[in-house]
Amino acid sequence: MSTVRVVCQQLAPRLGETEHNRNLGARAINDAAMLGAQVVVLPELMQSGYVFKDRQEAFELSEALDGPTLSLWKSLAAELDIIIVGGFCERLDDGQVANSAALVEPEGRLTVYRKAHLWNREKLIFTPGTAPPPVVQTAVGRIAMVICYDLELPEWVRLPALAGAELLCAPVNWPDAPRPASERPGEIVRVQANAAVNRMFIAACDRHGEERGIDWVGGSVIVDADGYPQAGGNAHRHEQRLVADLPLAQARDKYISAHNHVHQDRRPGLYLPSP
Amino acid sequence: MSTVRVVCQQLAPRLGETEHNRNLGARAINDAAMLGAQVVVLPELMQSGYVFKDRQEAFELSEALDGPTLSLWKSLAAELDIIIVGGFCERLDDGQVANSAALVEPEGRLTVYRKAHLWNREKLIFTPGTAPPPVVQTAVGRIAMVICYDLELPEWVRLPALAGAELLCAPVNWPDAPRPASERPGEIVRVQANAAVNRMFIAACDRHGEERGIDWVGGSVIVDADGYPQAGGNAHRHEQRLVADLPLAQARDKYISAHNHVHQDRRPGLYLPSP
Repeated sequence: MSTVRVVCQQLAPRLGETEHNRNLGARAINDAAMLGAQVVVLPELMQSGYVFKDRQEAFELSEALDGPTLSLWKSLAAELDIIIVGGFCERLDDGQVANSAALVEPEGRLTVYRKAHLWNREKLIFTPGTAPPPVVQTAVGRIAMVICYDLELPEWVRLPALAGAELLCAPVNWPDAPRPASERPGEIVRVQANAAVNRMFIAACDRHGEERGIDWVGGSVIVDADGYPQAGGNAHRHEQRLVADLPLAQARDKYISAHNHVHQDRRPGLYLPSP
Repeated sequence: MSTVRVVCQQLAPRLGETEHNRNLGARAINDAAMLGAQVVVLPELMQSGYVFKDRQEAFELSEALDGPTLSLWKSLAAELDIIIVGGFCERLDDGQVANSAALVEPEGRLTVYRKAHLWNREKLIFTPGTAPPPVVQTAVGRIAMVICYDLELPEWVRLPALAGAELLCAPVNWPDAPRPASERPGEIVRVQANAAVNRMFIAACDRHGEERGIDWVGGSVIVDADGYPQAGGNAHRHEQRLVADLPLAQARDKYISAHNHVHQDRRPGLYLPSP
């Protein structure tokens, strides 16, 4: 079965240093292409940094879809024949901003997803998305995006899976928090579960580099359709590059036993909470 | 915060030896009570064994709600002042059977849940349940039940959580399957994720003891509301007894940050798959 090379580049964007972040991202995209990556995933809000004081600060650092970061990603995708997924602070109308992810294809198509489930103070800053993750038929397979806390809502991850996504790319900024010393971070565990119950590959790209007192799990991971890590999967608070060759077509077969299909076994008529 | 002592008894029921299984279960319930358990969880189909040839064989081994196993559990619950959760092969009308779990309280109340998502050849044998897991207000907290493959459907686990369950007891028979040697079994990983995204405690009680060529993960686990194991959590293909003291009231607080409540953050209006 043919495989698709997917790379996660766990980097340290700097809050407000958009030019630095653009250069850092470009270097990472080039490095991934040198390794033969067909898909490269960058962290959430790679373009701007994360820990904004308020909406005004985020707005000043945001860019529109024809802004310099997305324009650069488009050029690099075409030049290097690589699919780029990364997070950016999207400028909306009326001073609003979204926590968005872009999927940029070599042919020039740009697909944007806006985070629908906002984490903590993001609720004071970003306008949440209202559209489910689009599933993009790319040259290498069907790819969708979600962002960070979206992964904690299994109903949300289900949607692109039901719509045929083979690879879910998730730019994340996982804030670090206490956990038992011997345990894999729970954020990674939830990625594993999301993958397995949908038989879908997931590439989650975290960040490192403290911002305004907040540090990060550094938990980038690429999991297969059974939910087991193929790369990463531990907390690593430094730069890291994950490389995995994924047989994406496996995600089209949802059977896990002679009689069990992970999607057809759903009984949605029973899943309505009692009022 | 006060805690509730929960014990999982990973045992080896024998197919068709209902008297043996009754005695084995009674011994395990007594042992748990001696340890001060307030809740004891036994495996799926503890009363009958699992690998039935066909529906007829299952029917012959099934029992009704006034049968000898449930009658014994009622006596033991009253005598030992303990809540018992365990799986049994339930006799229905017209030669039908259900893969069911009983929750028996010291006061004599019996609550039954019928597995709604059937695994593999179970589809040829059992009539699936159509009712969501009931949430029982017991003397020690709100308890619900699901059975084995039900845990692979996060929408299903969500229902008792939304209905206020603090502890989900899951009798399971997890068939063993290949996995990467260094990895925790995926069945346990999914239990962890289900717990964390709902901030609900889960006690999953697996079995051991080969039946007709099928062996088991032996992966019993008790996880906290953050999704981390408090007992068990590895494959152990022998008898084992897990003991955990759980602060169940923690499950009533669904906040995981100043602005995030794991249930109120859901956006069910967006969770409808496109047609």
